[in-house]
Amino acid sequence: MGERPDGTVVGVDIGGTKVGLRAVAPDDPSVVLAEARVDTPSGDPDALVGAVTDATIERAGGRPAALGGGVAGLVTRDGVVRYSPNLPGVQEFPLGQRLSDSLGCPVVVDNDATAATLAEWRVGAGRGHDDLLLVTLGTGIGAGLVMGGQLQRGAHGFAGEPGHMVVDPAGAPCACGRRGCWEAHASGSALGRMGAEAAAAHDASVLAALADGGVLRGEDVVAAALGGDDVARSVLDGFARWVALGLANLVSVLDCSVVVIGGGLVDLGDLLLEPVRQHLGGLVMGAAHRPAVTVVSAALGSSAGSAGAALAAAQAVGVTRGGRGSVA
Amino acid sequence: MGERPDGTVVGVDIGGTKVGLRAVAPDDPSVVLAEARVDTPSGDPDALVGAVTDATIERAGGRPAALGGGVAGLVTRDGVVRYSPNLPGVQEFPLGQRLSDSLGCPVVVDNDATAATLAEWRVGAGRGHDDLLLVTLGTGIGAGLVMGGQLQRGAHGFAGEPGHMVVDPAGAPCACGRRGCWEAHASGSALGRMGAEAAAAHDASVLAALADGGVLRGEDVVAAALGGDDVARSVLDGFARWVALGLANLVSVLDCSVVVIGGGLVDLGDLLLEPVRQHLGGLVMGAAHRPAVTVVSAALGSSAGSAGAALAAAQAVGVTRGGRGSVA
Repeated sequence: MGERPDGTVVGVDIGGTKVGLRAVAPDDPSVVLAEARVDTPSGDPDALVGAVTDATIERAGGRPAALGGGVAGLVTRDGVVRYSPNLPGVQEFPLGQRLSDSLGCPVVVDNDATAATLAEWRVGAGRGHDDLLLVTLGTGIGAGLVMGGQLQRGAHGFAGEPGHMVVDPAGAPCACGRRGCWEAHASGSALGRMGAEAAAAHDASVLAALADGGVLRGEDVVAAALGGDDVARSVLDGFARWVALGLANLVSVLDCSVVVIGGGLVDLGDLLLEPVRQHLGGLVMGAAHRPAVTVVSAALGSSAGSAGAALAAAQAVGVTRGGRGSVA
Repeated sequence: MGERPDGTVVGVDIGGTKVGLRAVAPDDPSVVLAEARVDTPSGDPDALVGAVTDATIERAGGRPAALGGGVAGLVTRDGVVRYSPNLPGVQEFPLGQRLSDSLGCPVVVDNDATAATLAEWRVGAGRGHDDLLLVTLGTGIGAGLVMGGQLQRGAHGFAGEPGHMVVDPAGAPCACGRRGCWEAHASGSALGRMGAEAAAAHDASVLAALADGGVLRGEDVVAAALGGDDVARSVLDGFARWVALGLANLVSVLDCSVVVIGGGLVDLGDLLLEPVRQHLGGLVMGAAHRPAVTVVSAALGSSAGSAGAALAAAQAVGVTRGGRGSVA
């Protein structure tokens, strides 16, 4: 550890269909040397290790100084993927150790939203806050927490899964088998379902015209709302209330000063965030006696996961400007 | 700060009807020198300052080295009580500063459950855990968090208010004006209401005999369940499920390794905790892929608040064994 390591530091965000990769300068993770997206061999853990290894060596120009990874689901503090909804073939798999063996460098593997949180906190929309919540609204809901000026991974590495808070025991069915999880009411998938229900009830609407066999995606509702469709905007307001309800629950527990919203739905910008802020004001416990929580869009977009994974790797090997050994 | 302060360190737990006081040795907060309970003048902040000052000076044998206080509600990090459900006359009141002026010593004021969490973490049932949740089930629900080996107060001092997580938007009315807060389904008050409903439906039951004009307290349901009444035990099981549902929500977010249950209902012991544990096993997200969270009774009972307030005060003035200046 006495010398500056050779090679770059690489972050990979391992999604269900694509691996996003970012290679950064070893002494300054804000300097991006290369980026790439490659297919994820999601069904086979050995093929996944091979694909990440090949892509890393190619883009890093050789063995990197360190690799960081982000994966959706339950990832232990020592890099074992216990369960990942996006990688059904990768369960109880020591991904960190296997990548370290394959690449011959230190590897840190985190939950993907935890990695994104590190990036948004250090170099993105949450900069300067000691108590921060990041929530990604996509197919599902992911989250990460900073409390007391520390990135919090929890006792086992599983902190930040509010998508499975039950917010209505009689609510919509969730992919996890229960009813009324926040994710079943406030994810992109939920927005699509709510849009399809509204389309069925308003057959002359833009939404109805967009529906394909009665099916809508969250993006379709977004597109119709951006186009000014009143039915879509009404759906979006109801959706924003569910988003705010879950955020209010989390603010009551965590007392964060800022909520950073990421994931695919953040492309909506203030069309979503403004009604979320309005609903949130009336839902947070003791709102009259506390500062309003700031709700902002993520700054790093879809590269937050790989950027955060690279940051975690750089910190783990102590090569960032923050000083050697200062792991978040 | 160079010399050991004179006098004792005092912790006060300021409840709606009583102030619990504990004076401890300045260099070892586990040595209890005096305890007392005095009436709370809840409607008048000046009278409250006077009563706490008098009780402290009498029991501490003079000016203490430091005072810690715990108060239900929203208490800022610099000791301003912004809103307290138990002290309707004490709002937006700088209690810490006023007590410091009155006593002439450093004063730390926290939320009461935050203070109790410090005590249970340092010297009680949560000892040795870096990620801990304390939940008090009493008239309402209070909570405190340790994450990453730090007591977490949040951005403003308001962390740990899960009683107002909405868990059923169509649920029971809450004292806060909304519906379906966890507190409206899983507090001692909620248990009394559920017992009264069961008593009305089973007029030959022990519960019905205990009901006074159709009204039951949580303690009545507890007494009937302890006496073996099947109706009361059934009420208690439904109640335990609501407790477990909220705990599962919190475990999904926080990934704590232990949940410490305090408050009046903890007198039930395993009669409550065992069904809570059973329901929790099926409610936590990804239960098959993670260690079961440990659910235990608080060790310090009703003195956890004053003990924790004394610990916080001792730490703030750096006189504990943990070393000078090591504030949690």
